[in-house]
Amino acid sequence: MINVLFSARPERWETYEAPLRAAFAQAGLDINLSTDVPPAEVDYIIYAPNGPVADFAPFTRAKGVLSLWAGVEKIVGNTSLTQPLTRMVDEGLAEGMVEWVAGHVLRYHLDMDRDICRRNTAWQVHIPPLARDRRIGVLGMGELGTACARALAGLNFDVAGWSRSPKSVAGVTCHHGDDGLEAVLAHSDILVLLLPATPATESILNAHSLAMLPTGARIVNPGRGELIDDDALLDALNTGHIAHATLDVFRIEPLPDDHPYWAHSNVTVTPHIASETRPGTAAKVIAENIRRGEAGEPFLYLVDRKAGY
Amino acid sequence: MINVLFSARPERWETYEAPLRAAFAQAGLDINLSTDVPPAEVDYIIYAPNGPVADFAPFTRAKGVLSLWAGVEKIVGNTSLTQPLTRMVDEGLAEGMVEWVAGHVLRYHLDMDRDICRRNTAWQVHIPPLARDRRIGVLGMGELGTACARALAGLNFDVAGWSRSPKSVAGVTCHHGDDGLEAVLAHSDILVLLLPATPATESILNAHSLAMLPTGARIVNPGRGELIDDDALLDALNTGHIAHATLDVFRIEPLPDDHPYWAHSNVTVTPHIASETRPGTAAKVIAENIRRGEAGEPFLYLVDRKAGY
Repeated sequence: MINVLFSARPERWETYEAPLRAAFAQAGLDINLSTDVPPAEVDYIIYAPNGPVADFAPFTRAKGVLSLWAGVEKIVGNTSLTQPLTRMVDEGLAEGMVEWVAGHVLRYHLDMDRDICRRNTAWQVHIPPLARDRRIGVLGMGELGTACARALAGLNFDVAGWSRSPKSVAGVTCHHGDDGLEAVLAHSDILVLLLPATPATESILNAHSLAMLPTGARIVNPGRGELIDDDALLDALNTGHIAHATLDVFRIEPLPDDHPYWAHSNVTVTPHIASETRPGTAAKVIAENIRRGEAGEPFLYLVDRKAGY
Repeated sequence: MINVLFSARPERWETYEAPLRAAFAQAGLDINLSTDVPPAEVDYIIYAPNGPVADFAPFTRAKGVLSLWAGVEKIVGNTSLTQPLTRMVDEGLAEGMVEWVAGHVLRYHLDMDRDICRRNTAWQVHIPPLARDRRIGVLGMGELGTACARALAGLNFDVAGWSRSPKSVAGVTCHHGDDGLEAVLAHSDILVLLLPATPATESILNAHSLAMLPTGARIVNPGRGELIDDDALLDALNTGHIAHATLDVFRIEPLPDDHPYWAHSNVTVTPHIASETRPGTAAKVIAENIRRGEAGEPFLYLVDRKAGY
């Protein structure tokens, strides 16, 4: 019998209990799944940062902390955490992210808003360029960034990607390092931010890097609010250097009512919906990692605590 | 020397002359291209319905009428036309159409308008289903319909297509005939119209067929205005059976200022921009067909005058 503690908000227990039990049964795992297990008896913790567990020290025999979230920046700094930490890479989450990013990039590419929000009867023809002539930059080529870059290349866009370390993705021009960042920014008629939030990526989009984007660039941020220096972005929107931004994530969520993003005519705020982990597919990832832990195999999606993701 | 008459509006001559001459040179064709050739000396006519030629009888030696337009419904009924007629299948046009259709389908799928046009500060989370759980119907599986259906399937949508005659497209559930039409309509959370305008497709979307769509269905029409019974669609929008429609083509264009579509809160009007033939790629198709005509090879995209496309 393997003891698994579910430590997330109560509403998550309601949506996750059944999919988890189904995934454990399917994986042939004999598991005691509960929201209440004495810490010293816990083998694995299924974890979300807004759940009850904050101190990992009492979990003396736990073999792994399995995050339900893709972003782990709220836990990697926790010094009580000595157990292996895995992050969630849910295929449902990646699919949803690809759809949201492809949709908003196409929206900008086609200049949709002028027709969607028009309140007059003006028949003004505006033929966009073809996607093959539209340059897209993707900052962050992890699972999500790579999936989005691939999908955008599949739609014929001219896609460049940037990551900390070198990558190779078919159909995508890949850059890395500081020089690579400048190259990708200069190439981005539309820029997509899919980096993790780490000390190295904090305000990576600032006055200096915004100035490297082509005039009239559009920005799509489904990554993390911390990637953007908000004052610098507002300045660039006000001068017109940046034509528009669609922001799904913010330093404070929900975005406060008095934040200037809400009222800015060149900003679209979406309420952190770009992607959401889906219980059905996420439960299978959790079950697979427990199976691996029990079999002595390496975990999927193990977090590099030093890199921060 | 091959005599080629260019018969379209003067502004088209300005955009097409250089790309055509370049394509002819590249194909090794020795061509006299002009907007003014005595009819009896013309070998090929490059044609648009709004150009000067209306009577084809004087063109006694012409081997082909090469349309610049994809839709040929304005010419197939011309009884003076005895020469072979080809329609334009421009890869730029198909690419642009795929991008426009993918963009608006994703817009509906993600329910983008609520965030794009929002004028308050409400943080209301709305997670859409995954594309794999969104049913799309494509009426018309010609070059454009097939390209769009393929691209939507590539984005993971659950796509069904309908055509007059049986088709087979990887990743798309293909139907045909009257029973097939009902099956596709019942399957369409989002319906895309890409049929040609023919007597058989006139008002194919009418009160009867609209009722076959699921409640809350959305409609995207980049095909032809004649496909829709406008009064029936307005009725279905007013009852809420159809949630929204994005219409790019109309029976009268530009859409008259007093047409109810302009003011309807559940209709997006776009000014016939879903796709446009691109001179650079279209000129290559024209050159290839003249090469084929001279070599005695069958034309590309020959119109079946009886079927009407």
